[in-house]
Amino acid sequence: MFSEIKNRKLALLTDLYELLMMQGYFKIKNFKNKIAVFDVFYRKNPYGNGFCVFAGLSEIIDFIMNLKFDESDINYLKKTKLFCDDFLDYLKSFKWSGSVYSFLEGSIINKKEPILKIIAPIIEAQLIESAVLSIFNHETMVATKAYRICKAADGKAVMEFGLRRAHSIDSSIYGAKAAIIAGCVGTSNVLTAKMYDLTPMGTQAHSWIMSFDSEYAAFYEFAKIYPNMCILLVDTYDTLNSGIPNAIKVFKKMKEENIKLTKYGIRIDSGDLAYLSCEARKILDKEGFSDALICVSNDLDENLIMSLNMQGAKIDLYGVGTKLITCYPDGSLGGVYKMSAISNGKSFEPKIKISENSEKITNPGNKEVYRIWDKNGNMIADLITLCDEEIDINKDLELFDPIEPWKKLYLKAFEYSIEKMLKPIIIDGKLVYCDISLEEKNKYFNSVKEKFTENQLRLINPKEYYVDLSKKLYDLKLNMLYNYKDN
Amino acid sequence: MFSEIKNRKLALLTDLYELLMMQGYFKIKNFKNKIAVFDVFYRKNPYGNGFCVFAGLSEIIDFIMNLKFDESDINYLKKTKLFCDDFLDYLKSFKWSGSVYSFLEGSIINKKEPILKIIAPIIEAQLIESAVLSIFNHETMVATKAYRICKAADGKAVMEFGLRRAHSIDSSIYGAKAAIIAGCVGTSNVLTAKMYDLTPMGTQAHSWIMSFDSEYAAFYEFAKIYPNMCILLVDTYDTLNSGIPNAIKVFKKMKEENIKLTKYGIRIDSGDLAYLSCEARKILDKEGFSDALICVSNDLDENLIMSLNMQGAKIDLYGVGTKLITCYPDGSLGGVYKMSAISNGKSFEPKIKISENSEKITNPGNKEVYRIWDKNGNMIADLITLCDEEIDINKDLELFDPIEPWKKLYLKAFEYSIEKMLKPIIIDGKLVYCDISLEEKNKYFNSVKEKFTENQLRLINPKEYYVDLSKKLYDLKLNMLYNYKDN
Repeated sequence: MFSEIKNRKLALLTDLYELLMMQGYFKIKNFKNKIAVFDVFYRKNPYGNGFCVFAGLSEIIDFIMNLKFDESDINYLKKTKLFCDDFLDYLKSFKWSGSVYSFLEGSIINKKEPILKIIAPIIEAQLIESAVLSIFNHETMVATKAYRICKAADGKAVMEFGLRRAHSIDSSIYGAKAAIIAGCVGTSNVLTAKMYDLTPMGTQAHSWIMSFDSEYAAFYEFAKIYPNMCILLVDTYDTLNSGIPNAIKVFKKMKEENIKLTKYGIRIDSGDLAYLSCEARKILDKEGFSDALICVSNDLDENLIMSLNMQGAKIDLYGVGTKLITCYPDGSLGGVYKMSAISNGKSFEPKIKISENSEKITNPGNKEVYRIWDKNGNMIADLITLCDEEIDINKDLELFDPIEPWKKLYLKAFEYSIEKMLKPIIIDGKLVYCDISLEEKNKYFNSVKEKFTENQLRLINPKEYYVDLSKKLYDLKLNMLYNYKDN
Repeated sequence: MFSEIKNRKLALLTDLYELLMMQGYFKIKNFKNKIAVFDVFYRKNPYGNGFCVFAGLSEIIDFIMNLKFDESDINYLKKTKLFCDDFLDYLKSFKWSGSVYSFLEGSIINKKEPILKIIAPIIEAQLIESAVLSIFNHETMVATKAYRICKAADGKAVMEFGLRRAHSIDSSIYGAKAAIIAGCVGTSNVLTAKMYDLTPMGTQAHSWIMSFDSEYAAFYEFAKIYPNMCILLVDTYDTLNSGIPNAIKVFKKMKEENIKLTKYGIRIDSGDLAYLSCEARKILDKEGFSDALICVSNDLDENLIMSLNMQGAKIDLYGVGTKLITCYPDGSLGGVYKMSAISNGKSFEPKIKISENSEKITNPGNKEVYRIWDKNGNMIADLITLCDEEIDINKDLELFDPIEPWKKLYLKAFEYSIEKMLKPIIIDGKLVYCDISLEEKNKYFNSVKEKFTENQLRLINPKEYYVDLSKKLYDLKLNMLYNYKDN
């Protein structure tokens, strides 16, 4: 899969403190090659949703695999006077040699479980933190919003129209990508469409209408050129008294001229969408254009779409921009990158971050995430274990809630199945994962979604699926919390 | 000024409908070279602020000046089967030949006035709409949020720390840039710092602390390596009982070892920042470290900073990330790109967009924006005129409010001064504007701000400055609204 990130020089796309710490590790004897484990996770599901839809892995891969400090980077760092020459020499030949394990894009994920795990020399693991988080946070946040909007649209197509309101270029490109993974049928962003081998989507703008002497002329000329995608924007002047009548005149005129409109209809971009879409449907049907599509746009999101549905709005197609691409109203996922273990030469020593804010306390150790399915293939829970534990489906399994540990669930041997969710992506600096198309990622998301219940999938007050800790991990965490004493 | 945008291939960074309309203009005789005027403006000040701080011009210039469809773009468009060969041939040799007039970065701007004006063959003007808006909306939104946060910080330094929570790469790069224009003292984003010739800023991460056997050892090693920027992160385990005591132990140890800490202190990243900062200040002062800085971070924005100030928190330095870089809570500025006139061969014919939502009605005509100052150099209002009007300071000037036109203000000849705010940037495809440094843009913003009153600058219920229409423009608009009749 082509990503523009490969062509860019992004080694300095990091927070200064990462470089300061790297130089610190570099200077302290026997430190820079200590292997550390970092988890990427988030603490709260956004938008009141019961989960997130993971996106961003491809861009994270491209970022990591193309890390290289060029001469101008080194010269700049030298100029800051913060770095010594031997560290800069080290950066000159820097190559990322660590490993990445990750959920796949399109996965349904939950708070507090590791979505990516990075195992690398600490000096290398530190460099990538900021950019990995930026990509993870952004794409996952947009994908999750897109899931909600598409679910509210209840089978009607949702097109991603957010480029002009995106937070600059990459936000539009990769936001559109993430939206398609989670259910949007396409995007108006031609660059995204090119990068991911899609057909871009679109209608027409007010400026097209305004550039002609009359609305009718604007519609007529457009219909003649684009009989296969003739969605006319009817709200430039007056939707009911001018836009729709002119659209109908043009549809009739095309019949007279024997020009077959294969995909045609109207778009309403302002006003009372519930009322106008119903009126439009009535008029179109009455005039014999019952196959004309009604597309709406104008600050839509899942709440407005649910409200339109409740009012019986007659809408075939949604164009969604601002609130999808800016992840309104939450804005940020807040994903973090936290050290969970560091090698002491022989094995991994677990590490924990304690905090005055107890939700900021981390899960220690080098961990694995198992998804547990019942015998019918339905999702039961995710189980976080330490890597040296084996989950054996030949044995009974006991799950318990880490918050209310007296609540237990027993699964009998052979009556459940498991999947390791953190797949090997990069191993010792080598890419071992073969990326798939955006269409396949969307299919994967749909197949994952099928295994969840409507209770979990619903938009308001959903039931979050369980993320349990193994007994061993739970005991380790409690033990570290009780026994923490700074030396 | 170096911008990474110059190196990228972004001609397809547009909504499909722009290309569809372009092909339409291309096919219709005598249409593609019709000159059109487009205004970029927004409809509502975000965050309850009384204005916006404009940013994004440099990137808009880089985008426009480097528009080029390469072979792979043409091949992709061909593959979509939406475009005919002669149009694709036209794109092969496409070069943007229009003109851009704009406010300068760092300007204070208001809703409903043109911030950029594009005059170009309609086929060229259309192409750039989506990307220009994305850049304008994003940077202006971040700059305005940064203004608010810095104002709340009331003279204390604010550092931009948002990379990891930005909506992907460009959002972090150009968001940090915009934040610095509007008052942030620097950014942790090293790539941004390199691009704009700044010194990046930063402290240390929890992972540094956790990678050592003890918090004390982590602080000690850091202090030895970075005596000039020794801000120790004290909340990894327990701020008051471990972090601050260990930091003080290290400050003392450095004295013993005759290592002078030139810039040093602590950072608190969680917990009750008001309480902890006051306690920290007491302890540090008592121990003889009254010059130690206290830096705080953790989901800060203007509201939290005002609250901290009200509580008497002892803070020297703010690190602001998520809520600044994601423009929380508004997310989007909603700027638009609307046609206001089109040439009929001889002169510009004004165009208006009417709408069911009356705030979506546009101002017609090829327009000019004058800023009006009183004789003391204080801001009075912005006045939008038609380009064929001349404002003459030798004559009395009457201003009136376009919403309440009976409210009038008379300015006597020679008792006011004016400035044309839309400066020539690109003329007939040639860049005529010479970009300035980020530091100069921040200075410009500061000098502009000085001419505004505290009523206009305050964060809560500010008085928005007036944007008036000239009599001629007002009459034209009303006339077009009353007389609109579709043909």
